[in-house]
Amino acid sequence: MNFTVEHIPNSEYAYALDAHTLRLVLKVQKGERFNEIGVLWNNKYNFAKSRNFARMKQCGSDGLYDVYLCDIVSSDVRFAYVFFLARQSGGEAYFSEEGLTEDYDFQYGKYPFFQFPYLNETDVVKTIPWTKNAVFYQIFIDRFKRGNFEKDDSYINQAWDAPVTYHSYTGGDLKGITEELPRLADMGITALYLTPIYKGRGNHKYSIIDYTEVDPMFGTNDDLDDLLKTAHALGIKVVTDTVFNHCGDIHPFFQDVMEKGKESRFYDWFIIHGDYPRKEPCNYETFSNCSYMPKWNTSNPKVREYLIDIALTYLSWGFDGLRLDVADEVSHTMWRELRQAVKNRYSEAVMVGEVWHENNMFLRGDELDGVMNYKLYKVLLDYFALDILTAKEAAESVNRVWYKNTRQANGMMLNFLDNHDNPRFLELCKGNEEKLCAALIALYFCPGMPCIYYGTELPLLGGEDPDCRRAYDWTKKPKYAEFLKALANIRKKLPDGDFYATIQGGILVLVREGKEERAKAYFGKYDAAGDAIFEYDNIKIVKEKV
Amino acid sequence: MNFTVEHIPNSEYAYALDAHTLRLVLKVQKGERFNEIGVLWNNKYNFAKSRNFARMKQCGSDGLYDVYLCDIVSSDVRFAYVFFLARQSGGEAYFSEEGLTEDYDFQYGKYPFFQFPYLNETDVVKTIPWTKNAVFYQIFIDRFKRGNFEKDDSYINQAWDAPVTYHSYTGGDLKGITEELPRLADMGITALYLTPIYKGRGNHKYSIIDYTEVDPMFGTNDDLDDLLKTAHALGIKVVTDTVFNHCGDIHPFFQDVMEKGKESRFYDWFIIHGDYPRKEPCNYETFSNCSYMPKWNTSNPKVREYLIDIALTYLSWGFDGLRLDVADEVSHTMWRELRQAVKNRYSEAVMVGEVWHENNMFLRGDELDGVMNYKLYKVLLDYFALDILTAKEAAESVNRVWYKNTRQANGMMLNFLDNHDNPRFLELCKGNEEKLCAALIALYFCPGMPCIYYGTELPLLGGEDPDCRRAYDWTKKPKYAEFLKALANIRKKLPDGDFYATIQGGILVLVREGKEERAKAYFGKYDAAGDAIFEYDNIKIVKEKV
Repeated sequence: MNFTVEHIPNSEYAYALDAHTLRLVLKVQKGERFNEIGVLWNNKYNFAKSRNFARMKQCGSDGLYDVYLCDIVSSDVRFAYVFFLARQSGGEAYFSEEGLTEDYDFQYGKYPFFQFPYLNETDVVKTIPWTKNAVFYQIFIDRFKRGNFEKDDSYINQAWDAPVTYHSYTGGDLKGITEELPRLADMGITALYLTPIYKGRGNHKYSIIDYTEVDPMFGTNDDLDDLLKTAHALGIKVVTDTVFNHCGDIHPFFQDVMEKGKESRFYDWFIIHGDYPRKEPCNYETFSNCSYMPKWNTSNPKVREYLIDIALTYLSWGFDGLRLDVADEVSHTMWRELRQAVKNRYSEAVMVGEVWHENNMFLRGDELDGVMNYKLYKVLLDYFALDILTAKEAAESVNRVWYKNTRQANGMMLNFLDNHDNPRFLELCKGNEEKLCAALIALYFCPGMPCIYYGTELPLLGGEDPDCRRAYDWTKKPKYAEFLKALANIRKKLPDGDFYATIQGGILVLVREGKEERAKAYFGKYDAAGDAIFEYDNIKIVKEKV
Repeated sequence: MNFTVEHIPNSEYAYALDAHTLRLVLKVQKGERFNEIGVLWNNKYNFAKSRNFARMKQCGSDGLYDVYLCDIVSSDVRFAYVFFLARQSGGEAYFSEEGLTEDYDFQYGKYPFFQFPYLNETDVVKTIPWTKNAVFYQIFIDRFKRGNFEKDDSYINQAWDAPVTYHSYTGGDLKGITEELPRLADMGITALYLTPIYKGRGNHKYSIIDYTEVDPMFGTNDDLDDLLKTAHALGIKVVTDTVFNHCGDIHPFFQDVMEKGKESRFYDWFIIHGDYPRKEPCNYETFSNCSYMPKWNTSNPKVREYLIDIALTYLSWGFDGLRLDVADEVSHTMWRELRQAVKNRYSEAVMVGEVWHENNMFLRGDELDGVMNYKLYKVLLDYFALDILTAKEAAESVNRVWYKNTRQANGMMLNFLDNHDNPRFLELCKGNEEKLCAALIALYFCPGMPCIYYGTELPLLGGEDPDCRRAYDWTKKPKYAEFLKALANIRKKLPDGDFYATIQGGILVLVREGKEERAKAYFGKYDAAGDAIFEYDNIKIVKEKV
């Protein structure tokens, strides 16, 4: 056999969609031609006797491989399966745990077939219902809106509209956000992602001192309560930035260690290389190279207990989910235990982690629901803003990203074009608003939860941090509010099912395919069949029957 | 780039060996020639500024790929890395999350490198110390030895040495095992794997009625206590077969459901398709197609709690581990919760699952320690017994099996040549004892825990179940006891470190390589350098300095 195939049992290549449906994915070397690709399957105890055959359909290519899918529905959920490939050039191939072979001995039942041994309902990853049509809006609190003019504002060190620095305080607060909720709801926003609001140092509050007290710059716990109640009344969910990788150096536990060293009962709550923590040169583990953000030692069960308790407190207040900061540097043990604790009591609370790199290890169903989708971001950036990918390469890249995870994980990704850690997308488009709008259409079309960074509706510009954290410009009417609203409405009409990218006539096409209908987004001039449900510039979204 | 490479971050290709050591594995398409393969790495926050270089060494080939390894040791455990390949045909290649590229822009620090974001100590999979030199002996209780001649033996339905059927009862019991422990210890056995001993139907007791009461055919709970104490005094660990996939149909909980149907409080402890369970045609989930073994519904948290409590009871009695029956059909949720409960209280208790197929999904550190190594078994069978693999194919197959899991998981595999579910290895060798001995040498040479099926020392013959469950022949002197003892002693002298298979002069060679010395097992005539520490027939184990 001179071609390559790829399949990994019990992974994103073979997983349960529901209690009776097994999704199978097969990657087949690009360029090979086949008359038919399918899967032979049955209850594993009867596999030697007889097999069912399910045809697989091609759903995109990732550059190296064409991707084939099928769903097997069965009341008997003990699956044995072997792939079957009939080549156009002649010859059949079977693909099993033994690899690619010209023949397969079904009578020798014991070893070679792939199996999904038993589909236990408890292992099925569930999509949290409200995430399905969620559209997020991310707010960097200090820069969105000031609502409280009675607070002690001696900390504010510049005019609202002056250029921001690392050390700017402009006065945004929770009350300002609450005031704007009706406008956001009208723009199709259904969920907020708030950067940290708890007592901490600096303007971003990622350096926390008290996890359960709203920072006085941003308001009070009562203000938070108001915000949550108003949001919920408008059908808006609220997710809180949850900083469990590290705290601030003036957190009382770390202060205790600074004072008492090894004698402190919190000494092993951090990771300190010496009897006392020392800042210069820093002898303890931190976030990045910042001595003011000491890392929690989540290898210590007491630390995990402490942090999990905080998470449960947030959810008990009414938060609808957690955005877990620097999720990739925190232990997997921590996320598994947190998930268990959270999901037992708040089954609809979403857990989204900050992971910039490969993310599959967090998304196997036992840790996080989704992550900030940096992998999709990079494709959208390279294609729409930077023009460094062709349409074909963009399609392949989208598929490569997509097939790294299950449909459920992809559906609970936080998809974004920019955030407080990266230049504004519009800045990277060199101010070209058509490019921004094209990328927004793609963002809303993809499964997953689109997340608009505050001010995109104006639109706002801004380079690398701190410039990407400019204050919202309240002197302007938001130019793209209606556009975003229209996209949010279109999004609700898109079929729920598979997703992939392809090209037609050299144009990038994103496809969402349900059982009965299919929607396609054409990113360029193309005489597409079907009913156009959205048009902008050269871009068209079309719906057709499957 | 016209060659293929494979690496998956945070998997068996990239994992912690200890709190400061990252093991990296890279697979490179076989046949390509390189002047150098290595990895460029650093703290991920400094990666753009500078990199260290670590050379990778080739450790075997799996038929499709040559496998390269290296270990990175660092006090700063936030790893960024990119592979570097210099081809003999000219040209350099870099391999990152972006794929294989001719160049790599280190200044563009944000996305493309691979990362192991932070090595948290709690995520390091630990090898249980006693498993390192463990040699197991598996006993099928009814057929090993009768020790108690005062018990009610009316159930015994045939003479000890008569041919066995599915329904034979020959009288073996715990007392018989206890009596034989000194002999087993002398043979180098350091651990027992006992098939189920609890009250149940039939002779194999996989159909359990009472999980915490020794079956009267096999003895009493006091007899078990004697066995455990005697074993421990001899330095022998004892692992109990733990049947959590299903119970027996006359288990009182299932009986309650038979009687009351949906009204029973145990109705949702099983998976029943109807108001009442019905046997013919069977309307509830079972093990295989056996209505007398109803499947536990481990999607029900109460069931998990009940079973976990049983496991903790076994360990509280002094058992040193659990052999988890039909592990692949039980929910992953169950194994994760069981692991947490077990390891919190009994950190040295081993958890080995019965998995005949791909097993990696159970061996990522959050479920089981090891599995019954059916994948290695098949290679040993095909090469040593059935002669259907060449030495080269055998070496490639061994490596393919090996690199599917981490070193820690491989070290805690239960490696076997036969067991109560398969024909005796000697039977499949058509009685050729030299072949059996060659395979035993390989079994003891491989990392993992070799497991001798009772009677192999005689040796015993036996075909498919029930013939593979023949009674031990006490009229014979065990011909291979000294051979097994010698192997157990040699095993202790083998370097602890890497393992792979290769060929030299057409001969299969297994290699164990530590930091200072290397042992090689040559399976055939070969004029090997180094000191021979074991010789049998044409087979030689040789040690040399690295």
